[in-house]
Amino acid sequence: MDENTQHDCSFLADVLPEERFSLDRAERERFAADEGPHPASVPDAVARPHSTAQVSAVLAAANERGVPVTPWSGGSSIEGNPIPVEGGVVLDTFEMDDVTIRAADRQAVVGPGVVYDELNTAAESAGLRFAPGIAAGDVATVGGMVANNASGLNAVRYGQTREHVYRLEVVLPDGEVVECGRDVVKTASGYSLRDLFVGSEGTLGVVTEATVALEPIPRVRRAALAVFPTREAAGEAVAAVMRSGITPGAIEYLDTRTMEMVAARTDVDVPEAPTLVLEVHSESDAGAKAALEAVRERCEGAGVSEWRAAAGDDIDDVWQARRDVYPAACDYREGATVAVIGDVTVPVSKYPDIIRATVDAADELGVTTPCVGHAGDGNLHFLPIADLDDEDEVARAMALNDRLVAAAIDVGGTATGEHGVGIGKRKFMDREHANAVDLMREVKDAVDPDGVMNPGKVLPDPDE
Amino acid sequence: MDENTQHDCSFLADVLPEERFSLDRAERERFAADEGPHPASVPDAVARPHSTAQVSAVLAAANERGVPVTPWSGGSSIEGNPIPVEGGVVLDTFEMDDVTIRAADRQAVVGPGVVYDELNTAAESAGLRFAPGIAAGDVATVGGMVANNASGLNAVRYGQTREHVYRLEVVLPDGEVVECGRDVVKTASGYSLRDLFVGSEGTLGVVTEATVALEPIPRVRRAALAVFPTREAAGEAVAAVMRSGITPGAIEYLDTRTMEMVAARTDVDVPEAPTLVLEVHSESDAGAKAALEAVRERCEGAGVSEWRAAAGDDIDDVWQARRDVYPAACDYREGATVAVIGDVTVPVSKYPDIIRATVDAADELGVTTPCVGHAGDGNLHFLPIADLDDEDEVARAMALNDRLVAAAIDVGGTATGEHGVGIGKRKFMDREHANAVDLMREVKDAVDPDGVMNPGKVLPDPDE
Repeated sequence: MDENTQHDCSFLADVLPEERFSLDRAERERFAADEGPHPASVPDAVARPHSTAQVSAVLAAANERGVPVTPWSGGSSIEGNPIPVEGGVVLDTFEMDDVTIRAADRQAVVGPGVVYDELNTAAESAGLRFAPGIAAGDVATVGGMVANNASGLNAVRYGQTREHVYRLEVVLPDGEVVECGRDVVKTASGYSLRDLFVGSEGTLGVVTEATVALEPIPRVRRAALAVFPTREAAGEAVAAVMRSGITPGAIEYLDTRTMEMVAARTDVDVPEAPTLVLEVHSESDAGAKAALEAVRERCEGAGVSEWRAAAGDDIDDVWQARRDVYPAACDYREGATVAVIGDVTVPVSKYPDIIRATVDAADELGVTTPCVGHAGDGNLHFLPIADLDDEDEVARAMALNDRLVAAAIDVGGTATGEHGVGIGKRKFMDREHANAVDLMREVKDAVDPDGVMNPGKVLPDPDE
Repeated sequence: MDENTQHDCSFLADVLPEERFSLDRAERERFAADEGPHPASVPDAVARPHSTAQVSAVLAAANERGVPVTPWSGGSSIEGNPIPVEGGVVLDTFEMDDVTIRAADRQAVVGPGVVYDELNTAAESAGLRFAPGIAAGDVATVGGMVANNASGLNAVRYGQTREHVYRLEVVLPDGEVVECGRDVVKTASGYSLRDLFVGSEGTLGVVTEATVALEPIPRVRRAALAVFPTREAAGEAVAAVMRSGITPGAIEYLDTRTMEMVAARTDVDVPEAPTLVLEVHSESDAGAKAALEAVRERCEGAGVSEWRAAAGDDIDDVWQARRDVYPAACDYREGATVAVIGDVTVPVSKYPDIIRATVDAADELGVTTPCVGHAGDGNLHFLPIADLDDEDEVARAMALNDRLVAAAIDVGGTATGEHGVGIGKRKFMDREHANAVDLMREVKDAVDPDGVMNPGKVLPDPDE
């Protein structure tokens, strides 16, 4: 045990083959930070199990010694969810990537390391897909999606990861292996332990296999870009569409400033006004046409000033502005980048309020930020820009985030719609959940009495 | 405390107004049994709180005294879920029936006593509905649906109650009130305590308020009755439809014997062969037409021998045979009735196997039973008929149930798709969940350390 480590992890040699773990510094440093702004922390060892039995052996041995274990898969999270803040073992499940498609059951049985896009490639020939839909589908894994209850811009119609999980094989902190849930669409049998592990961010155990639901790939998609004279008109259109009987596949809001940032980066004609990007999905071409027509009527009722509809391959063009938001924010100012990604959700009726609050807070704090999000389900993202060497500017970006998280919670919303609590949102847990945090803590203590699983995440310290 | 009671419940006078509880025998007997075959057990008291504060006061006082509390709402369950097997207090929440429709948020905030159909009546003028869909919608309450994770024949498209709950206000066994979840569509914040209480059948606490999701009422429905020459052909049609990219609103299977029983009861022409009742839902008439046409093509590919399509008010006619199954079974033989309602779910690909197993077991045991179910999600119901005074015949009906539950579990299925564990399915918990039952027990002990909440339900005794 050298001076740079917190826990003696030499026990891994007793439970894993030599090639399945490393105590090497350079290797360990690869697992010190995710894609977010939270400080890196180098683990004392990296274990790379290839089987449930190996995961079990590592957990049993670590638990016995009080050594923390932090699960890791894609590493694409941004709230510090897999950062090993107390050292110990990072358990990298990325290579547990078996996929079995059960087309007749509309199911896939997958290892936690299966990358989202790869699962969908495997399911495609059966006309199926894993529907939660996330932005980082090329790197995020199913294990990470389950851990964070991840989702993306299609959640308005298809829901979060939680709604697409049937069964989880989980290794508990003491090494015991349990099956949570069954490979069926419906069950009313017993406590839903499965749902306890979904979204628990690796703090209760390690998912080693999942049976997930596959859905038919939408037969027909149509999309439109709708430009509005004012933010209020766009908000009115969102409300009208969501009340119309049509549930769009996506309904994205981009505010004027965001559109200006996108316009500055491209030669393509980008309307510099509040904009919605809408997509409808249907089981038939006739259905898609009718759905988009119904959406257009609602947008006209709200005073839409420009309507660009698209079908087939042209749908990509409609999405161009939305796709460009993050790169446009990163490129917006020489030497600056996105300092933190905001991710609040509010009741849909409060969406216009939280957008206004974002713009006002940004002005007051002197922060530049896109303001963009999944308007149909109340999930708003803001991406304050800062020079990361400018402490004051970074502090103002973080203050914007803090202020808006608090505002979202205070109108009945949540600190995180998609990205999880990790390190970044722990300080808001009491504000959001009040005394339910005590009950979460009791559950944690029952499942992980020694507190070895991913310590320092999700739950705030009792005295914080 | 008279000789007919198990627990002294006179403490209720200290915590509730006089008109909100009763120790009267006649009143208590009304809460001794549900609609199923399980033995009645008269509670020692009935409390009828009108507020969360009153529920809290009852629970705190009962818990302190070790007096069992069993929540009750509609009483329409059939697995003995609310039977107070250890006496104590039945907590009747039926009169906690406030409803607030938040149309802009597609939400309703409801008390546990709100009847399913009444919630939908309240939501209808906003074009919305609470979608889980259950057979006993005229008596079952939202509180009971949450407790049992109930659902019905539309679950194939819309899911179970679980997927439609955003937030629960729960009174814990010690009287503490916690909010589980938020009034938002999406959250990734903390452990989903909400999902722990959904389906826990009142064994962890009492739900005193719920925010549930409302969905647009399907704009257009179309339906068809499809008759097949063989059970195998019908099974092939189900598989083809479910792979077609169309998710029907309902897809019900009725076997030949079931259709014969229905035919015996009516003058209407009922085909006496394996039959599917199919319904499609769409956001437009064009979409519904196209969807039903796609379904018809799949049925033709599987060799459908008769196809009766319907739209508008005629849809009711298509559903007549399916609606008649339960009354036809009850009336089938003079002096006999349905002895028990089977409710297993298997992976969809195993559905033909479990139907065959049902027919074979019924023949072997000399039991008459309809065989009917939600083919699209693998949920099968069988309704063995017996003269309730004929012990042997009742035993054979129960043996059929036991045998098929075991068979369903052994192919990866579950003991209950819709009705919960209650008393009836406890003995199958170990077979279905293995060592995960221990983890459920640890959760129960953490939340209800004194074991006062609805004892004798869901979890088997450790030594059973």
